[in-house]
Amino acid sequence: MGAFSLGRGDRFRKPRLAGLTHVIDTGLPLEQTRALFEVVGEYLDLWKFGFGTSYLDPTAAKKIRLLTESGIEACLGGTLLEVAWLESKTDECLAWARDMGFPYVEVSNGASKMSTAEKHRLIETARADFTVIAEVGSKDPEDAVWAQAWADEMVGDLAAGASWGITEGRESGTVGLYTSDGSVRWLVVDAVTGAVGADKVIFEAPRRNQQAALIRRFGPNVNLGNVSPFEVLGVEALRRGLRVDTLVTSLAESESR
Amino acid sequence: MGAFSLGRGDRFRKPRLAGLTHVIDTGLPLEQTRALFEVVGEYLDLWKFGFGTSYLDPTAAKKIRLLTESGIEACLGGTLLEVAWLESKTDECLAWARDMGFPYVEVSNGASKMSTAEKHRLIETARADFTVIAEVGSKDPEDAVWAQAWADEMVGDLAAGASWGITEGRESGTVGLYTSDGSVRWLVVDAVTGAVGADKVIFEAPRRNQQAALIRRFGPNVNLGNVSPFEVLGVEALRRGLRVDTLVTSLAESESR
Amino acid sequence: MGAFSLGRGDRFRKPRLAGLTHVIDTGLPLEQTRALFEVVGEYLDLWKFGFGTSYLDPTAAKKIRLLTESGIEACLGGTLLEVAWLESKTDECLAWARDMGFPYVEVSNGASKMSTAEKHRLIETARADFTVIAEVGSKDPEDAVWAQAWADEMVGDLAAGASWGITEGRESGTVGLYTSDGSVRWLVVDAVTGAVGADKVIFEAPRRNQQAALIRRFGPNVNLGNVSPFEVLGVEALRRGLRVDTLVTSLAESESR
Repeated sequence: MGAFSLGRGDRFRKPRLAGLTHVIDTGLPLEQTRALFEVVGEYLDLWKFGFGTSYLDPTAAKKIRLLTESGIEACLGGTLLEVAWLESKTDECLAWARDMGFPYVEVSNGASKMSTAEKHRLIETARADFTVIAEVGSKDPEDAVWAQAWADEMVGDLAAGASWGITEGRESGTVGLYTSDGSVRWLVVDAVTGAVGADKVIFEAPRRNQQAALIRRFGPNVNLGNVSPFEVLGVEALRRGLRVDTLVTSLAESESR
Repeated sequence: MGAFSLGRGDRFRKPRLAGLTHVIDTGLPLEQTRALFEVVGEYLDLWKFGFGTSYLDPTAAKKIRLLTESGIEACLGGTLLEVAWLESKTDECLAWARDMGFPYVEVSNGASKMSTAEKHRLIETARADFTVIAEVGSKDPEDAVWAQAWADEMVGDLAAGASWGITEGRESGTVGLYTSDGSVRWLVVDAVTGAVGADKVIFEAPRRNQQAALIRRFGPNVNLGNVSPFEVLGVEALRRGLRVDTLVTSLAESESR
Repeated sequence: MGAFSLGRGDRFRKPRLAGLTHVIDTGLPLEQTRALFEVVGEYLDLWKFGFGTSYLDPTAAKKIRLLTESGIEACLGGTLLEVAWLESKTDECLAWARDMGFPYVEVSNGASKMSTAEKHRLIETARADFTVIAEVGSKDPEDAVWAQAWADEMVGDLAAGASWGITEGRESGTVGLYTSDGSVRWLVVDAVTGAVGADKVIFEAPRRNQQAALIRRFGPNVNLGNVSPFEVLGVEALRRGLRVDTLVTSLAESESR
C-alpha cells in the first residue's frame, strides 16, 4: 500500500464478515499460488477448488495447508460432493475432505437433481465438521419464475445451517444469475437479498462487468465469488474506485456524502 | 488422488495410446511449466510449441529436456515447418529440431498452400527422425465439401508415415473443425473417424464445450488437442465425469451398463 | 534464437525507438514476472501497471526494480493519476511514483473529464521527472467525429512534452480505437498517424486480430500496447511472420522486395 491514500476509504479489512472475495481455482500450481498470495493475500478470503480439481491434483493437501497458513479459507467445490451423492458416497467424501484439511465445503444441487430436502440434510451433516456455503441455482433461463424459488431455497439453506448462500454463475458468468450474454438478472438479486440480506449472499461474478455492477449496487463490501485468481487485484481496484468501471460512481457517491 | 474413488473408472493411465491430452503452449516459462507438471503430469501426453515459440524462446531447449524427463512428448508446431518450407529450409529446420531435442513434429499445410503430395514427402522425410503428427484442415467454412477431403487427406497422411492425424481448430476453436461460433462440425468428425478410427485422430478442442461434446460422443479416452496448459486438470475432470458438462451423460451411461 | 534464420529479418532489436511492445500488467506475481523475462525479455519494452495495481500490490516497488534491472521500462497507468487528479492529489501521486521508482507515467483523461488544457499542464509537470506517454481516447462510438479530435489531441500532447501518444483500446479491445466487436477504426488510425507519424503512436491492441491487422498495415516495427504478458511471444511471432495471421502477407511483401 502506498504512503498516500486514494479511492474509497470504506473498504473492510481482514478478517471481515462481508466484502468477501471468493476465488475459483482450476488447478493453479503450488508455487504460483504462494507467489500470488504475496500480491493479493490481503484482498482474498475464500478459495474454492473448482469441480474435481482437489480430487485430481496430487498437491491439493499441500495447497490447503498453504491456504490455511495464509489466512485464506479452502473450500471444497460443490460438484465433487454432488458426484459423491450420486454414487452414495457422501460420508466418505466428507471424511476425505476432513482428512485433506478443508475448513469449508460448498453444498449444491445444480448438477444432480438432489431434492431440497436432501440438500438440507446434507448441509446439516456437513456443518458438524465444516463451515458450509450453500449454492442456489440452475441453468434454467426462466428467471421470472425462479427469483422467488431462489430466495426460498436460500432461506431454507441458511436455516439448515449454511453460513452463506452463493448464487450460481459458473466460471463463465453466462448462466444462473446471468443471462447468456452475461447481464445480471436483477430480479434474482433483489429476491435473494430481500430474503436473507446482502451480507449473507456471495454472488458468483466471474466477469468484470458483473463485478462492477454489483459493486455499484451494493458498495465496496459486497461478497463476490468465482473470481479468477488472476483477477483478485482487479476486483480490489473495482471495490475501491480505482478502475474506471466504478470510478465515476464512487466519486459521485463521495460527492453526495 | 484421493483415498476414495469417484467418477468414471475407465480412464486409461500413462503411457497410453488413446485418451491423449495434447497441449498448445504459447510460451509458458520454465519454472511455471515445472510447477504445472507436479499437478497435471499424469494427465498430459503431448506438448506442442505453438507457431514460432520454440524458435523465439531462448529457454526452449531446456524446456524440451524438462518435458522429456517428465514423460511428456515435445512436439514442434506445424507453422514453423511451413515457414521453413516456404523459405526452402525444411532440411535445416528438421536438423535444428533434432538438435533441440524434439521427439515429435507436426506436419501441416494449412498456412502455406503446400500440396498434398509435397506434404506426404515431408511426412516421409520427417518420420526418419521424429514421430509425426499430421494436421488436416483449413479455415474454409465449406464443411459439406471438405468432410470427405479431410478424411481422404488423413488416410494419405497416415499412409505416408504419420502416427496420428490432428484436426485443425487453432487455439481459438472457431475454424476448421468448428464453426465461427465454436460448434462442432460433426460431418467432419464422422468422416475422419469413419476413415481412420477415432484412436488415430487428435481433435484440436480448445473450448470446454468442444471438449465435453467430444467426450460425450467418444468417451473418456478420446484424444483432445490444443488444450491450454491451464485447462489440463479441467479436461481430466471432464473425462472422468467430475464436471457438470459430462456428469449427467457419464452417469446415464453407467446406469445403462 | 535458433542457429538458422526464419521469417522477416527487418525486426528492430533492443533498445529500439519503434517496434515497441507495451504490456498491461494486472498483477503478475514477482517470481512469474522474473521467469517470464527469461523467455520474452528481448521482445518487451514497456510494462504498464494497469489501473490501481501498483497502489494495491505490496510487492510493486520490488517489481519496478526487477523491470529496471531487466531493461524494461515501468510505467504508471493513467487511471491512478486520474483518480489522484479528481482528489486534488496529483503532486502527491507523482512524488509517490518517483519514490516507487517509475521512470514512465501515462497521462490520460478518459475516465475523469479532465480538460485538454489541464491534461497538457499535467504532462508538462510530469515530464520534469518522468518520460510521459499520453493517452488519447474515450468510449464514445462516434468515431467519424472523433478521428480528427484524436489527432489534434495527440499533436497537443506531444507538444506539451509527451514522448509517445497511446490510443485507447482498454484491455478488452472493444472501445476507443476499436468497435464493440473488436474491429479496427481505420479512420482513427489514419488520422493520428497522419498527424504525428506512426512511430510516435503506441496502439493499444490486446487482441490477436488487432495486432495482426496493425502489423500487416505498418510492418513488424509498429508499436503495440496493452498486450497481455502471456502473449508477448505470440506478438513477436506475428511481427516476424511466424504465425499464420501475418505469414502470407509478410511473404508476399518479401517477394516484392
